[in-house]
Amino acid sequence: MKRDKRVVIVGSVAMDSIETPFGKKDEILGGSATFSSIGASFFNRNNIAIVAVVGTDFPKKYINIFDTHQINLDGLEIKEGKTFRWKGSYLKDIHSPITDYTHLNVFENFYPKIPRNLKNVPYLFLANIDPELQRNVLNTMTSSKLVLCDTMNYWIQTKPKVLLSFLKKVDIFLLNEGEARDLSGEDNLINAAKSLMSKGARSIIIKKGEHGVLYFSKDFTFAAPAVLLDKVCDPTGAGDTFAGAFLGYLSNSTKINEQNIRKALVYANIMASFTVEKFSVNGILNISKGDIDKRYKKFVGLTRF
Amino acid sequence: MKRDKRVVIVGSVAMDSIETPFGKKDEILGGSATFSSIGASFFNRNNIAIVAVVGTDFPKKYINIFDTHQINLDGLEIKEGKTFRWKGSYLKDIHSPITDYTHLNVFENFYPKIPRNLKNVPYLFLANIDPELQRNVLNTMTSSKLVLCDTMNYWIQTKPKVLLSFLKKVDIFLLNEGEARDLSGEDNLINAAKSLMSKGARSIIIKKGEHGVLYFSKDFTFAAPAVLLDKVCDPTGAGDTFAGAFLGYLSNSTKINEQNIRKALVYANIMASFTVEKFSVNGILNISKGDIDKRYKKFVGLTRF
Repeated sequence: MKRDKRVVIVGSVAMDSIETPFGKKDEILGGSATFSSIGASFFNRNNIAIVAVVGTDFPKKYINIFDTHQINLDGLEIKEGKTFRWKGSYLKDIHSPITDYTHLNVFENFYPKIPRNLKNVPYLFLANIDPELQRNVLNTMTSSKLVLCDTMNYWIQTKPKVLLSFLKKVDIFLLNEGEARDLSGEDNLINAAKSLMSKGARSIIIKKGEHGVLYFSKDFTFAAPAVLLDKVCDPTGAGDTFAGAFLGYLSNSTKINEQNIRKALVYANIMASFTVEKFSVNGILNISKGDIDKRYKKFVGLTRF
Repeated sequence: MKRDKRVVIVGSVAMDSIETPFGKKDEILGGSATFSSIGASFFNRNNIAIVAVVGTDFPKKYINIFDTHQINLDGLEIKEGKTFRWKGSYLKDIHSPITDYTHLNVFENFYPKIPRNLKNVPYLFLANIDPELQRNVLNTMTSSKLVLCDTMNYWIQTKPKVLLSFLKKVDIFLLNEGEARDLSGEDNLINAAKSLMSKGARSIIIKKGEHGVLYFSKDFTFAAPAVLLDKVCDPTGAGDTFAGAFLGYLSNSTKINEQNIRKALVYANIMASFTVEKFSVNGILNISKGDIDKRYKKFVGLTRF
């Protein structure tokens, strides 16, 4: 029997307006499902599906981007109304945006409906949405083999109990430094990871942005610095690209073992580095497998000793 | 002819009073020359000398610590008066102390006198002191093969021109993140390193504390995460231990080449991790070469992919 490599990503598709020291762009393609699905598509072509919602105003040219990357849009609901919009500025701090506005629009009442043909998909990425919805999706899926789950500070502050309630069903829980500290109540990141694992999560990825990434499980720990970049144009979507590339690589690996998890984390790192070099998804739209492998090799050179 | 492996370290020997979440200690051994010489002694036994000053109140038990590590004290001046004292607290932020007081005492008019028999030493570490004094020491040395130079924000703000004036005579310039940004005027660390290299430094080490270390030269770039620790008791001296271990390892290497520089940086990382686990130099006093190698191997496991 052929191995089922399909991936479902549940998250947002948005239109962002962003200002950074490198310019100002309006209504560019954004959203967690966008970055993660495109990031994943480089490693597991034609096996990536998204479940998300956009408004009737969502431009055809953006649909084309998903199509070009052979991303399954069966679960993309097009709803009467406007697409989720976010406006932010990185002028003060290139690593942390100031939000001008968040207009949820059709995303406000988003209820992810997993198409019948996708319910038995083995690989699931629950991108950052309301943890109650994440839990519902988890309960809908019938054959999950590996579940990756992201969240954000807002949910940690407002619905920590819901988050913790389904941690046992999550294989890999993805947080940034601050989120790991907040949800665990531990300042030290090792202790934060240990605490979250004691609450049920099988493994933890802590994203440290420009400082790299940490991975914790009971079997092993992994640390990698970030790719060194002399230009960070727009960090929006870096974490989602990371998550997508990670799951894309793993879902197309013959085995989910230590070696492949380490490699997946490095490829995820590499893909995130492409994302931040340009606005929106432009940094990962036109790269080739050769570009990725070249940067991977450079990273080997950067870190070996 | 036997290779000359001798190292001279010019810096401070101090008595620190420190409060951290793990306790409060008064008048414990501190100072840049202290941490760096002991850190270096593990890699180049019996070839490390310090040039520093203490007061007549400096306890014999602390002299014994240097003796135990076979550190040459020919250049340790004992001057009528009190030893340099610093009091700081890490209660608010374990990575960045709040200074209660700095009493320079005999260190105020410290003028490093390199003993005649040490003037031709090939390896020099200019720990953080007034850059005018660093420049004088540089001009005194007759056979420098490798010069490592540290500084601090205070000198970058008050005497940047002096610092930049002798950058060409420095082989490896050591800074933390903030210092690299301040001295170069560049926010991005790669650009900061490039800028400092264009001003004469042959290579740059940027210490990122809990986030690891970066190394830049025209030949290669290296990045390593920090050792993961579930307890940071007292970070005082971590950077100096790092510097000492780095130079200790390199000065005892048959060649100063890329491979050995990478290894020296990792050993420096390892030694810094021992330092922060206990107060003062206690973390590195009683460790063995076996302890160091064990942690080195663990670090290989942490970072390989």
